Amino acid sequence: MRVAIGMDIGGTSVKMGLVSRAGRVLSARSVPTAEARGCRAQLLLWTRHARELADEARRMGASVAGIGIGAPGPVDARRGFVYFFPNIPGWKNVPLRDLLRRRTGFTVRVDNDANAMALGEFRHGAGRGATDVVFLTLGTGVGGGLVIGGRLFDGPSYSAAEIGHLVIDERGPRCACGNRGCLETFVGNGYLVAEARRRLAGGERSVLARWTAAGHRLDPILLGKAARAGDRLAAGIWERAGDRLGTALAGLVNILNPQRIILGGGVAQNGRLIFDPVRRAIAKKAFPVAARSVKVLPAKLGTDAGLVGAASLVF
Amino acid sequence: MRVAIGMDIGGTSVKMGLVSRAGRVLSARSVPTAEARGCRAQLLLWTRHARELADEARRMGASVAGIGIGAPGPVDARRGFVYFFPNIPGWKNVPLRDLLRRRTGFTVRVDNDANAMALGEFRHGAGRGATDVVFLTLGTGVGGGLVIGGRLFDGPSYSAAEIGHLVIDERGPRCACGNRGCLETFVGNGYLVAEARRRLAGGERSVLARWTAAGHRLDPILLGKAARAGDRLAAGIWERAGDRLGTALAGLVNILNPQRIILGGGVAQNGRLIFDPVRRAIAKKAFPVAARSVKVLPAKLGTDAGLVGAASLVF
Repeated sequence: MRVAIGMDIGGTSVKMGLVSRAGRVLSARSVPTAEARGCRAQLLLWTRHARELADEARRMGASVAGIGIGAPGPVDARRGFVYFFPNIPGWKNVPLRDLLRRRTGFTVRVDNDANAMALGEFRHGAGRGATDVVFLTLGTGVGGGLVIGGRLFDGPSYSAAEIGHLVIDERGPRCACGNRGCLETFVGNGYLVAEARRRLAGGERSVLARWTAAGHRLDPILLGKAARAGDRLAAGIWERAGDRLGTALAGLVNILNPQRIILGGGVAQNGRLIFDPVRRAIAKKAFPVAARSVKVLPAKLGTDAGLVGAASLVF
Repeated sequence: MRVAIGMDIGGTSVKMGLVSRAGRVLSARSVPTAEARGCRAQLLLWTRHARELADEARRMGASVAGIGIGAPGPVDARRGFVYFFPNIPGWKNVPLRDLLRRRTGFTVRVDNDANAMALGEFRHGAGRGATDVVFLTLGTGVGGGLVIGGRLFDGPSYSAAEIGHLVIDERGPRCACGNRGCLETFVGNGYLVAEARRRLAGGERSVLARWTAAGHRLDPILLGKAARAGDRLAAGIWERAGDRLGTALAGLVNILNPQRIILGGGVAQNGRLIFDPVRRAIAKKAFPVAARSVKVLPAKLGTDAGLVGAASLVF
């Protein structure tokens, strides 16, 4: 049996594990990112864990096909080169692939985390059977990945699929990328929470006023609970976010004509609150042939998405 | 020598001609669309011209590899099936490929005209040497074509590349497609002229007032002349249209990471008036790696684009 070592690098922890060709997680561990400081020390630590996982694979009678890495920042996937990690200090212009290959002896493949998750969902999740998939992970930021004609699409200079930075309102709010009115500014966690705060401060009635006064943190999870409990303010925020997401996706449907749009990440866990308005907007705003041929689905791999996706880079 | 018969179907005339594999037009003729009425009569007429062109090829010592057709409306390129032509009566649900193949005996390939032009520019024009190209033709509408990974990208249900219908302002003007704030509503001929009219009616000073009073038609050509003559109103309209086009393209650059963006059609013939603001907006609004790796160029094939593009569908 061939397995891959998947690595899902995050700001607080690195998930590492053995993943089968079929996308099954055979063994997993979580390494706190802060356990080592700086790029060199972290590489040493990860090398040790990779060797342990390889030993584990051997005991299972499996051989390791390589290490696949989902990286939390811009990379050059061809060279496995990390430009920088916005949330992990000490990572700037690091030839991650070459360094880890030299230390472990394994083939190493690196891509950004959203691309890796897109590949994972395409091979083993909600994208199975399709050839053209748009994947979005909704959280603090909005990450994107594209599968075009059955292959992960990185673009000629490996900077494609930044779907969160499609402009849907050129007069809209300023985005972290410097632009105005990017999709991310309308559906990122920060926007949802800020919008709720603004409306509460404006005196709108909502169960959220009571809940936050009682010490609950105002975050997308609380917004989801409130909407499901029938709160109009919260429901309106989801409706508006879903409509805007659907508007951006309608444009993408007109351009890429995908068979599946897969939504993952925290925000997407709010089910119909977000999926209903997204689907309505696409049905109304995209061209009929393209709108009819696309399904909007929740991601299937859940918390394993990053790990499975990273491992799929190897196979 | 192998040649293809290219057919560029338009609302007023159909250009037909012999095109070499290298994209050279060896012989061309223009058949008024109104010379025959209705789909059947037009097919008969085109069949006669195709046979004449085939005879001509034979006299040149060339053999015909097939007929390539750029169609002015939505088609299913795989089946060569025409859904409808908005500007030619009598064309609805026509199996164009099969009908013309039966009548002529030649292999027939059909795609929409913007896709065909994109392929022509990619093989023989401003896209040579690239693998990933975004093509736009700017006129009454905004047509688009995509080359991804060295191949024309039609999408799984042949309705991709409708770049004119990317939403850049969800609160913007109503588009012919039913949506609001599509790119087309900001850079199509109709918008440019309406905007000039609105500002003239508002009392803004402009040489256009004098020119139109003298009987000149207010159209994009006149707007171009006025801007080049230093007219501020006209220059402002181009600047704004270019900025909006650049905003939409910046989003596409973030998603598709193309090496070339090629602008064709009447509006694009206004050179720096439109290209300068487009390039500035992309440099400012797209991600640096992606922005640096894209060149924005005018289409090279000019009035032959449709014919050469259609013929390239065959090779």
